Amino acid sequence: MADSLIKRMSTSDADFDASLTSLLDWESVSNPAVVETVATVLAKVRADGDAALLDFTRKFDAWEPDAASSLEISSSRMQAALERIDVSVRAALETAADRIRTYHQHQSQDSWSYREADGTLLGQQITALDRVGLYVPGGKATYPSSVLMNAIPAKVAGVDELIMVSPTPKGYVNDMVLAAAAIAGVDRVFTVGGAQAIAALAYGTESIPKVDKIVGPGNIYVATAKRQVFGSVGLDMIAGPSEILVICDGKTDPDWIAMDLFSQAEHDEDAQSILLSPDVEFLNKVEASIARLLPTAERADIIRQSLSRRGALVCVKDIDEAIAVSNRIAPEHLELSVDNAEELLPKIRHAGAIFMGRYTPEALGDYCAGPNHVLPTSGTARFSSPLGVYDFQKRSSLIACSAAGASELAKVASILARGESLTAHAQSAEYRILDDGNE
Amino acid sequence: MADSLIKRMSTSDADFDASLTSLLDWESVSNPAVVETVATVLAKVRADGDAALLDFTRKFDAWEPDAASSLEISSSRMQAALERIDVSVRAALETAADRIRTYHQHQSQDSWSYREADGTLLGQQITALDRVGLYVPGGKATYPSSVLMNAIPAKVAGVDELIMVSPTPKGYVNDMVLAAAAIAGVDRVFTVGGAQAIAALAYGTESIPKVDKIVGPGNIYVATAKRQVFGSVGLDMIAGPSEILVICDGKTDPDWIAMDLFSQAEHDEDAQSILLSPDVEFLNKVEASIARLLPTAERADIIRQSLSRRGALVCVKDIDEAIAVSNRIAPEHLELSVDNAEELLPKIRHAGAIFMGRYTPEALGDYCAGPNHVLPTSGTARFSSPLGVYDFQKRSSLIACSAAGASELAKVASILARGESLTAHAQSAEYRILDDGNE
Repeated sequence: MADSLIKRMSTSDADFDASLTSLLDWESVSNPAVVETVATVLAKVRADGDAALLDFTRKFDAWEPDAASSLEISSSRMQAALERIDVSVRAALETAADRIRTYHQHQSQDSWSYREADGTLLGQQITALDRVGLYVPGGKATYPSSVLMNAIPAKVAGVDELIMVSPTPKGYVNDMVLAAAAIAGVDRVFTVGGAQAIAALAYGTESIPKVDKIVGPGNIYVATAKRQVFGSVGLDMIAGPSEILVICDGKTDPDWIAMDLFSQAEHDEDAQSILLSPDVEFLNKVEASIARLLPTAERADIIRQSLSRRGALVCVKDIDEAIAVSNRIAPEHLELSVDNAEELLPKIRHAGAIFMGRYTPEALGDYCAGPNHVLPTSGTARFSSPLGVYDFQKRSSLIACSAAGASELAKVASILARGESLTAHAQSAEYRILDDGNE
Repeated sequence: MADSLIKRMSTSDADFDASLTSLLDWESVSNPAVVETVATVLAKVRADGDAALLDFTRKFDAWEPDAASSLEISSSRMQAALERIDVSVRAALETAADRIRTYHQHQSQDSWSYREADGTLLGQQITALDRVGLYVPGGKATYPSSVLMNAIPAKVAGVDELIMVSPTPKGYVNDMVLAAAAIAGVDRVFTVGGAQAIAALAYGTESIPKVDKIVGPGNIYVATAKRQVFGSVGLDMIAGPSEILVICDGKTDPDWIAMDLFSQAEHDEDAQSILLSPDVEFLNKVEASIARLLPTAERADIIRQSLSRRGALVCVKDIDEAIAVSNRIAPEHLELSVDNAEELLPKIRHAGAIFMGRYTPEALGDYCAGPNHVLPTSGTARFSSPLGVYDFQKRSSLIACSAAGASELAKVASILARGESLTAHAQSAEYRILDDGNE
C-alpha cells in the first residue's frame, strides 16, 4: 500500500474533528520490561553506588572504566575539546550561548515583600536550586545545542553546581558536547548514561553527588528512570515527539514552508508537521515543493515516514479559524508565516514558542535566537511552559507578624480552625491574642 | 512497651546524622491493589462517561443520584450555604479570602519583550490556564480553608473556569465548603469524588468538562489517580505528611512552642514536629509543657502518636547550627521563634514557608495570613515552591526576526545544525540568509 506523501484535510470536511483527533493521537506506552529493568538498575545503584555504576557502564556502554574516578571528565579535558573544535563551530556555539544567556536573564525573578500598617511583613524569598543534574544523550545523536539550552538557564538562575552526565558508548566522547559544556559553565561531567546515570543523580554515589533536580532528554530507559525517581528529586517535563504547526497566509515561498515542515519531520518518524492555510492553491504548491525537495533531503526516509504518518496540509476558512485550530492543538512550535504576526498574538491561547513572520523559521529558535528549545509537547502547552530560569529557582513564603497583627489574625484563624475541628491550631493561634490575658 | 512522649536528640550525639536520617525517613508506598482499582475506575469513566460516574458514586459514596444533572450543585445552592453559615464564620472566611487574594496578586506575572537593534523581537507571553479542576475531600474532614487556598490563586491568575469536585458520602454536603467555594469564585461544583472524579476532570464526561490542570489534596485513591493521569493533564504536587520545624532561642513561652508542635501533630499520625534549640533547659520546659498540655488536647491520641513516632526535641550548638540542620531538612514549615528573625533569612536555603518571630505560629499561615498553605513536603522544598498564581499561568516564547536579524541568526543556526547532522534545519535557516540570492 503506497502511503500518500502527506495528508490533505480541510476544516470543511464533515469528519474534520475526528480526523484531527486521530492525527494528533499520541500516547506514550510504558513497556513493562523496560519498567522492570529500570527498577533493578535504580535499586542496584542505590545500594551499591559506584560499583554498580562501573558494572552497568561495562555492560551497557561497552567500555571498561578502570576506577570510579575515571568516570569524571576533568575541566582541562573540557577546555581541550573547546580548543580542538573547528573555530567557526566554536564561534557559533559562543554566539548562541550569549544570546541564550541574554534572553534568559529576563526571566530572573526577585524576592519581594510588603509590610502592612500594623507592621506585619508578607513576601516571597526566591533562591536557586543548590545542585542540578543534566542528562545529555550520547553516541551518534549528540546535541550540543541541548547542552546550552539546559545548562544556561540553570547557571543564570544561580545554581551553584551543575553536574552533567552523558554515556560514552565504547568510550567515544563527543568534542562538541564537551565544548558546549565548557561554554555553558557546566561544573562537572561524568561519563555515565542510561537509568544508572539517573539513579546516580537521584541518590548520589561515592563519586557522583546527589542533585535536587534532573533535566535533559533521554531514551526510553532514561525517561522511565526519571518517572521512577520522581518525588525524591525534581524533574523537567518528559517530552513526547516534537511537533510544529505552521499557519501561512499563502504569501511565503512554498519551498521555505516545505523545508520548515521538513526541519521538524527529520527529528524522527513520530515527529509531527502540520500546515494550515486558507489558500488551497498555496497548499498545492507546498505539496509540490515537498515532492520536489524530499529526494534531496539527507534524512529523506525519516521525513517521508513522519510526513505520511503524522503530517497534514489543512485548508482553513481564514486565519482566525487557523488560530482556533491551533488553540485546540496547543502546539509545541507555532510558526505564524503571515504579515503582522504580532497582531495575532492576543488570540493565541496555547503554544510552547511562537515564531512570527516569514523570517522566523523554527530552526533559528532551535539553536540561537535566545529562547529555550525545551518546550511542552503533545498539547501540554495548555498547562506548561518552556524550560526557563524559573525551573531552577524556588520560592519560600515569608510571614512575620507584629504582635498587633498576630492578635487580629489569630481571631480569624481560631474561628476557621475550630470550624475544621483542628483545636490545637486554634489554641496555637489564640495564645497570640493580646487582649485575652495571655500577654 | 511505653513510647517516650517525644524523642530527645542532640547534634553532639555521635550518631546524630544517622538518627536524623531515620527520623526523616518517609517513603510513600504504592499499593498494587489500589493502583489496579484506580486503573479500572479511570478506564471505565474514560469509556462510559457520566454512566460510570453515577455507578461509582452509588458504589463508593453510598447515595443515589437520579441523573447526571443532579451531580452538579447550582450556584443558588452555593449562595444559600453562604447565607446559612454562622455570620462569624462567614466573616472569617471573607477576611481570609481577602488577605489570600491580596497576597497572591503580588505573584502575577506580566508578559515581556524586547527588541534588538536589527528589529528582531524576543519575549515571553503569559496566559492563564483555560480551565482548572479543584479536588476537595469530603465527608468528616472537610477543609474550607483548602478551597480558598487552591481556588483563589487560580482566579487571580485569570483562569476562566474553575471546576470543583467533592464527594458527598451518603449525600452529605458541607455548608462551609460550599460557602468557601462561593467566596473564592469557583464556577461549577460537582458532587463526585475519588478516582472517578479525577478521571472526569482528566478526560471529561458528558456533564463534567475536561480540565487542563487538577489541584487539591485527596486520599490514596485520589493521589494514585492523579499519578496515573499525569501527562495528559497538569497536576499540583502530591503531598506527603505535613511537617513543622521550629527553631527557638529559648525565649518564647514553652507552652506556645508546645502548642505550635501540637498544631502540626494533630493532622495525622505521620505528621512531623521537630524543635531545635541551643537551650537545653528550654527543651526541658517544652517537654514539660507537652506532658501537661497533651491530656487537654481534643486530638490527644493522634498528637501522642505523631510526637512519639516522628517528633523530636533537638539540642543544637547555636542558631547557626540550627539553620544548617534546617537546610538539610528543607522543611515544609519553618518557624523562627527568635529575635530578629529577618536577619536569618539570607541563610535559609530551603523551606516552603518561613514563619518569623514569636507572634507568627504556623496556624496563622494555615488560615489567613495570606500566603498559600499548599507547600512542598518531605524535603521537596529543595526544588519546589508553594502553590501560587504561577501554577495557573503558562508562558509562550516569542520570536519575531527581522529580515536582517534572521540572516545573521541563520548563519549561526546553519553551522550548529550541520554539526548535529540536521540538514533540513540548516536549509530552513539558510533560505533566510539575505545575501545568498534567496531574496
